[in-house]
Amino acid sequence: MPPMSLGEFDLIERYFWRAASQGPRHAVVGNGDDCAVLAPRPGMHMAVSTDTLVEGRHFLSTVSPRRLGHKALAVNLSDLAACGATPVAFTLALTLPRVDEAWLAGFAQGLLDIADEHGCELIGGDTTSGPLAIGITVMGEVPAGQALLRSGAQVGDDLWVSGLPGEARLALEAFRGSLQPGLLGEAFEAVRLAMECPTPRVALGQGLRGVATAAIDVSDGLLGDLGHILRRSRVGASLVLDALPVSPHLAGLPQALRHDCILAGGDDYELVFTTPPVQRAHVQALGASLGLVLSRIGQIEAEPGLRLWHGALDGANDGPNGGDLAARTAVPNRWTSFDHFKGAA
Amino acid sequence: MPPMSLGEFDLIERYFWRAASQGPRHAVVGNGDDCAVLAPRPGMHMAVSTDTLVEGRHFLSTVSPRRLGHKALAVNLSDLAACGATPVAFTLALTLPRVDEAWLAGFAQGLLDIADEHGCELIGGDTTSGPLAIGITVMGEVPAGQALLRSGAQVGDDLWVSGLPGEARLALEAFRGSLQPGLLGEAFEAVRLAMECPTPRVALGQGLRGVATAAIDVSDGLLGDLGHILRRSRVGASLVLDALPVSPHLAGLPQALRHDCILAGGDDYELVFTTPPVQRAHVQALGASLGLVLSRIGQIEAEPGLRLWHGALDGANDGPNGGDLAARTAVPNRWTSFDHFKGAA
Repeated sequence: MPPMSLGEFDLIERYFWRAASQGPRHAVVGNGDDCAVLAPRPGMHMAVSTDTLVEGRHFLSTVSPRRLGHKALAVNLSDLAACGATPVAFTLALTLPRVDEAWLAGFAQGLLDIADEHGCELIGGDTTSGPLAIGITVMGEVPAGQALLRSGAQVGDDLWVSGLPGEARLALEAFRGSLQPGLLGEAFEAVRLAMECPTPRVALGQGLRGVATAAIDVSDGLLGDLGHILRRSRVGASLVLDALPVSPHLAGLPQALRHDCILAGGDDYELVFTTPPVQRAHVQALGASLGLVLSRIGQIEAEPGLRLWHGALDGANDGPNGGDLAARTAVPNRWTSFDHFKGAA
Repeated sequence: MPPMSLGEFDLIERYFWRAASQGPRHAVVGNGDDCAVLAPRPGMHMAVSTDTLVEGRHFLSTVSPRRLGHKALAVNLSDLAACGATPVAFTLALTLPRVDEAWLAGFAQGLLDIADEHGCELIGGDTTSGPLAIGITVMGEVPAGQALLRSGAQVGDDLWVSGLPGEARLALEAFRGSLQPGLLGEAFEAVRLAMECPTPRVALGQGLRGVATAAIDVSDGLLGDLGHILRRSRVGASLVLDALPVSPHLAGLPQALRHDCILAGGDDYELVFTTPPVQRAHVQALGASLGLVLSRIGQIEAEPGLRLWHGALDGANDGPNGGDLAARTAVPNRWTSFDHFKGAA
């Protein structure tokens, strides 16, 4: 493709900085110098994460530019959420095949709307010519020593998931035409929104500081991401399929497909986290205060690996020190190759 | 092109983290969690910059992977240098058309060698499939309030440039075959090294804290980047062409081509900076201590715009409070469209 002219690069950059100029302010030196300069607050550590979205791999060409702008920052804010960090600032590396002002206007609006919502300032950027890709590095602050890690899960901890995972995967299947019957209009639009416009669980992550022992965001699928917690924490887990939250849009699906979507769908940006059982009421109250479904779906165990069950989560021995899983029947884990679904979008 | 398999992505990521595991340590939580976590030191601000290198625009396909790895971080470290910041950490977003282990080995070595040299830790990354591009976001620390900016130049300040700008441009012309006669082998290799393996002036930038009133790195060409200082500082400048440093590889060129390379070549990663005349001896001592040529090439003036001269830099009134430019003749500025050269590489 023909390279963009320099005037076009300038246009793009002016466009973003002008649009961002009404947004949140954290930098003591903003964009426009060789570096932006941030002033960390005393006692705060800085969490940093980077993610690139590439057309065809991380989003479909059918997505609206506004939703794409939203999603590009949302998936990065989700990493901050998983660490319990408060968003502060981000940089944008934008690769564009051409200059399309209508596209840029929509993209910038979606990007800067969610940035403003989370008080996250655009502090630097770079524009190059090439196949559409959006690279973002996000920075957030977290009190020293309070970052949520993957490595802290303890035997006996409760295992939780936020929201209604699986909708994004269902939308992808609908786009692929693999659903028989297909989704009706309203249901399709709802799950499409989940895929194209995910909500990073930033407030939940902050609320879990000092409460959760481990956390991760569900980008590659619930079981795959849970696997990272188990490996890093050197523990295992039991997960009760009947305790999984089920979106109304997934309720009518055949069980196998429903489980595929919920357990291995990915692109959900919900949080999976572990807490000591003594925190159970606190977590439920946190979910209620955020208007967010938080589902207890299993428990951490000493035996390595992941075991799946049908049945009830809690037995007679359930209590603040952890409980038995009762009346359960084992389910073969056919999602062992979690990566099967990764990158399918 | 066919997308890489997930195993290949894992391979790449393992490759970099294993190779980086012997390097500098700044993060309290390193790569491998949702975020890395940095602990800013008390009284320090954090400088952040981002730059992407794309094949054909920022480097030629003929560059060795090792030099490319070096350059990708060097151009980002140069932005920290221009702010007077000390490198701390960086993230890497790598887009690769295919997995070539020999290429990756060379690239990683070049990248991590310069990272180690500057104590800059690789704290996060992301690998995607596509045309070769390297996106880096770099973070450095600078004492609160001491970041060098583009906006601080004062009327009467000396104007300086480090090193021998112009060599990178000469190498590009040699690659294009536009030089008559061409460069001999040794000279070609020397200027090719300047283009492919630039040295970020990190120690100079730190030494200029509290000394320079403004600074910028020369990525787009000396005059173009000086223009940013003049506009941001709301001042003008006189620049004496005969005071410019001339690389031995440029000395034999026709004057017009020599000036093109030095004044508008770009890709130099030298620093242009301004200091009060009272700092003149201090700057010269700094250059000597770093083994780096620092050339006083002009002065900052109240009249907006940039004036070019032949002649001597200092007249009879030269002194610590600024001096006249003496015995000078004006030179038309035919580099007004500085952007002409930008992105030519």
